[in-house]
Amino acid sequence: MSILEKVNYPEDIKKLSISELYTLSEEIREFLLYNIANTGGHLAANLGVVELTLALLYTFNPPEDKIVWDVGHQCYVYKILTGRKERFATLRKLGGLSGFPKSKESIYDSFDTGHSSTSISVALGFAIARDLNHKDYNVIAVIGDGALTGGLAYEGLNNAGRYNGKLLVILNDNQMSISKNVGAIAKYLSKVRTQPRYFKLKKATDELVANIPFIGEKLNQLVRKLKGGLKYILFPGMLFEALGFEYYGPIDGHDIKKMCEVFENVKNLTKPVLVHIVTQKGKGYEHAERFPEKYHGVPPFDIETGNHLTDTNSKSFSEVLGDKLCELAKENQKIVGITAAMPDGTGLTKFAKMYPERFFDVGIAEEHAVTFAAALAKEGFKPFVAIYSTFLQRAFDQIIHDVCLQNLNVVFCIDRAGLVGEDGETHHGSFDISYLTLIPNLTVMAPKDTKEFEMMLDFAAAYHDGPIAIRYPRGTTKIVGVYEPILFGKSEILVEGSNLAIFTVGRHVSMLYDIIKENNLNVTLINVRFLKPLDVELVEKITKTHKKILIVEDNTVIGGLGEKIKGIIAEINSLNLVKHIGLLDKFIQHGSISELYSLLGLDKENLKNVIMELIAD
Amino acid sequence: MSILEKVNYPEDIKKLSISELYTLSEEIREFLLYNIANTGGHLAANLGVVELTLALLYTFNPPEDKIVWDVGHQCYVYKILTGRKERFATLRKLGGLSGFPKSKESIYDSFDTGHSSTSISVALGFAIARDLNHKDYNVIAVIGDGALTGGLAYEGLNNAGRYNGKLLVILNDNQMSISKNVGAIAKYLSKVRTQPRYFKLKKATDELVANIPFIGEKLNQLVRKLKGGLKYILFPGMLFEALGFEYYGPIDGHDIKKMCEVFENVKNLTKPVLVHIVTQKGKGYEHAERFPEKYHGVPPFDIETGNHLTDTNSKSFSEVLGDKLCELAKENQKIVGITAAMPDGTGLTKFAKMYPERFFDVGIAEEHAVTFAAALAKEGFKPFVAIYSTFLQRAFDQIIHDVCLQNLNVVFCIDRAGLVGEDGETHHGSFDISYLTLIPNLTVMAPKDTKEFEMMLDFAAAYHDGPIAIRYPRGTTKIVGVYEPILFGKSEILVEGSNLAIFTVGRHVSMLYDIIKENNLNVTLINVRFLKPLDVELVEKITKTHKKILIVEDNTVIGGLGEKIKGIIAEINSLNLVKHIGLLDKFIQHGSISELYSLLGLDKENLKNVIMELIAD
Repeated sequence: MSILEKVNYPEDIKKLSISELYTLSEEIREFLLYNIANTGGHLAANLGVVELTLALLYTFNPPEDKIVWDVGHQCYVYKILTGRKERFATLRKLGGLSGFPKSKESIYDSFDTGHSSTSISVALGFAIARDLNHKDYNVIAVIGDGALTGGLAYEGLNNAGRYNGKLLVILNDNQMSISKNVGAIAKYLSKVRTQPRYFKLKKATDELVANIPFIGEKLNQLVRKLKGGLKYILFPGMLFEALGFEYYGPIDGHDIKKMCEVFENVKNLTKPVLVHIVTQKGKGYEHAERFPEKYHGVPPFDIETGNHLTDTNSKSFSEVLGDKLCELAKENQKIVGITAAMPDGTGLTKFAKMYPERFFDVGIAEEHAVTFAAALAKEGFKPFVAIYSTFLQRAFDQIIHDVCLQNLNVVFCIDRAGLVGEDGETHHGSFDISYLTLIPNLTVMAPKDTKEFEMMLDFAAAYHDGPIAIRYPRGTTKIVGVYEPILFGKSEILVEGSNLAIFTVGRHVSMLYDIIKENNLNVTLINVRFLKPLDVELVEKITKTHKKILIVEDNTVIGGLGEKIKGIIAEINSLNLVKHIGLLDKFIQHGSISELYSLLGLDKENLKNVIMELIAD
Repeated sequence: MSILEKVNYPEDIKKLSISELYTLSEEIREFLLYNIANTGGHLAANLGVVELTLALLYTFNPPEDKIVWDVGHQCYVYKILTGRKERFATLRKLGGLSGFPKSKESIYDSFDTGHSSTSISVALGFAIARDLNHKDYNVIAVIGDGALTGGLAYEGLNNAGRYNGKLLVILNDNQMSISKNVGAIAKYLSKVRTQPRYFKLKKATDELVANIPFIGEKLNQLVRKLKGGLKYILFPGMLFEALGFEYYGPIDGHDIKKMCEVFENVKNLTKPVLVHIVTQKGKGYEHAERFPEKYHGVPPFDIETGNHLTDTNSKSFSEVLGDKLCELAKENQKIVGITAAMPDGTGLTKFAKMYPERFFDVGIAEEHAVTFAAALAKEGFKPFVAIYSTFLQRAFDQIIHDVCLQNLNVVFCIDRAGLVGEDGETHHGSFDISYLTLIPNLTVMAPKDTKEFEMMLDFAAAYHDGPIAIRYPRGTTKIVGVYEPILFGKSEILVEGSNLAIFTVGRHVSMLYDIIKENNLNVTLINVRFLKPLDVELVEKITKTHKKILIVEDNTVIGGLGEKIKGIIAEINSLNLVKHIGLLDKFIQHGSISELYSLLGLDKENLKNVIMELIAD
């Protein structure tokens, strides 16, 4: 009987010897591989944290002690060891276990995550709640070096660093975001990891300096110089110490014994502590060790060969972006590519190889990605910023304030728009039509298939009058055909019929097209193409010529395509006389509020006139 | 003739001697005081950067060299010295100079700002654009220690720190955000500023150690120990050095000569450089030096007494929040108050004094504020998070992902909703109804006056089924009266009439109420109260009973109240039969896309049935 068979909850872990924990870690790796090969999921990150999770459960007592997994895709081992081993085969399946921490799934999951860099802020909130409740349990944030590139993590550190209670941050340093990690922090951590000789040299020099007698001014000067050259790399934790944390590390994240010792030593310190552990992403599975980015999130795969078991016949939207952008960049030297830790997922890897000087992976830093793009656009460049729909939510203000306010030529390539499937709640791109179309100056498009996506990329590359967003789904869609040229703000009528008209966008175009063709229906089908500006003229015409109207969108029903079309219908074709006065869809200048209200028709005088006219009408 | 009279452009500055620059700085202070006392504006920050601006213009050559002012409220001196002195009396007035950098106002304004922490990302974008264009000018970001508490600034530093070209960041350290600065960074900078003895001691020790002969093992050990005790505060720039910057400072930011020397020395370095200067906010005006937070943004004031010249008869919404929250917190121990560097502006100063353990000013870190609040709510607390509408845009994803996904009891008190007036484009709260109502689980309210605001705060304090946002304008509104009890999702009918019905919220309620009463109109007036969930039942009823409908809102016309009401009208009372299918207004679980589409009615089978029914109808 294996050890894993006997282990279901943290208390079972605590009964094991350290050497049994090592055996268990190997069994868990096999279990993970076997299962994820079937379900798909986040393989590499979980292979990397097996020993860390065991050390945490050996030392701490969840659910009383609260462990917050940043991002949360590395929580599989934790799920297996907190009562969910038997259900693990249901991972990421409808009704099954989530691939991320979910507090409604288990009391062991202290906080729901999915997006990056939240854990330190959450842990600080937990710690302060504990203090206010006069309790004494431990709160532990586990954050990767990738997540540490996000601004929110830093805001968390800055606030936690002045806190004077018990708070433990474990930096799980695997040198990766989803792809290879980037930025100054990555460089700094790499020095800490790989250059212990600096720190040893420092120590040796100190001793030398301390013990050396006066050996002549020149020689002593030399010693001082030697020390001077080292002043910038004095001790590994200086970054975190400057931020108010007590630092321990770097520690081998596969050494269970060592980690348990350190955790035991720090767990009662009443101050913010950061333990820096170094792990290997993909540990124990050769294919994943070699190509961790390829095994970050995987579909089902063959364990022996490592090959993904998916239909890869047709090109995905992401692949089309990669190829097309390379083609466009060849002709237009001003095109640059920007992504936030997603060169593979967004398809930009090829571009990065062909145009390294014009490619920027900024790390998990969507805000910076967008503001940085704005500055490049301000200087005449044409940045294509490729970010998933759900993650672009993090740069909402930067899109408004840094790009659209100045009407800059930035192209947002918004991958994973609409439902994404197995990653679930935190990852669906459910909101983008709504949160993008409310922004002045922004053009918002959605292609019906990859061919039309190429046309839209051509259009965006040539268009020089402000920011453009193109939203497209994960994977691919069926090729529809037709393809009227892309005209600014114009929809495409794919089928003309009478009585019923259907407005739709994106991946529902092909589905509805097939329904109509297969059933030979007398229905008009409109591929909306431009969510903003909407083809109001066409909507008005269709409203008049078609008795029945259906709107289908892969976006929340609030503030999306449907409400816009219904807004027009209400104004032109309802039994009511409807008038709507609000702030114009543009950035509004400064001035006193009453002056601005007068300009915008929101002042008392104008509103009175509007009412009088309506009444008289 | 004064020096200022002769100075209009940077080239005029360059002709002056250093001692003339000092005279000029005094003249500029007088000019600022005289003008801002009339126009109102950001006084204290500008008084603090007079010498810095002169040193920058003495050393650098804008517009070729690009200076990026973070936030931008400290750009007045720069505006005066870049051709806008004569227009300065029009500051913040309709059609006049903006209180923030505006590139359409002057070529000297390199990038539009208004929100905090963008400058390093912008400067990096400018620097890389310069390199790609094979140019050689300088790019300078000027960022305050307050703005440095924002995550975007750190994302910028992290990306800039690995850059190997010419980039200068000037840290203008005045120990303040709008209020006293907070966080570990602030503590760190304070050490750097106030404890030069540490650094001197370090130097002395080094010299001692280097020069001392062997004086006995014990004495040498003592020396080593002394050094060891200093290891965590070894040199002032270690935080920035760890992030890849070369650090210079701290330097007196009122010493023009010294600043010019340093800028001259670093301006040709091809690496990221951070110069840390220390300034005094409010410098030269006694009232502002003593109470810089009171003189951060001021209305017109009396120079002699420092008294604000505004009508302060009626209580502002912010003041009501402060008083009411203190009252609620007395009865409910679980209430905590959170703000992002705005204790004064949001009215929470009183709460901070009464309940210091339950008050958290997190710095300019809106993302952290929201995620931190989510964690406190998860542990049973009831956080009231007070942030301006325009700044809450920065935490859009955290509201979705950390608060609403788990349906946590966080109350967002959204000040400065709708137009704010003189601060203009970057500060209007034009978008909140749209970007908040699209989020599942979130309740969104707006009071018509301060009395109703108190009722809504009572409601929010008592309500225990998820997050609530209350949006309210800057200043105050006329008291309307009536006050039906607040019922979840229910509107208030203020006037009943026939034919025309008006739906409105917030500060337009009193305006429309007056119009109706003053003109004795037979019109129905509805104070919508709940933007989400909307009182659909009432809208449907009114649509049937009133021929004419007017919707008035102080929010963009896209995705706001109007579109929601019109959406209902189109579905129930138009000449078209309208059906709308999209993603339900809730967080959608995981599963395959086709399974989820089936569940949501967005699959081919269901859509076919819908179409067939519509056609047959």
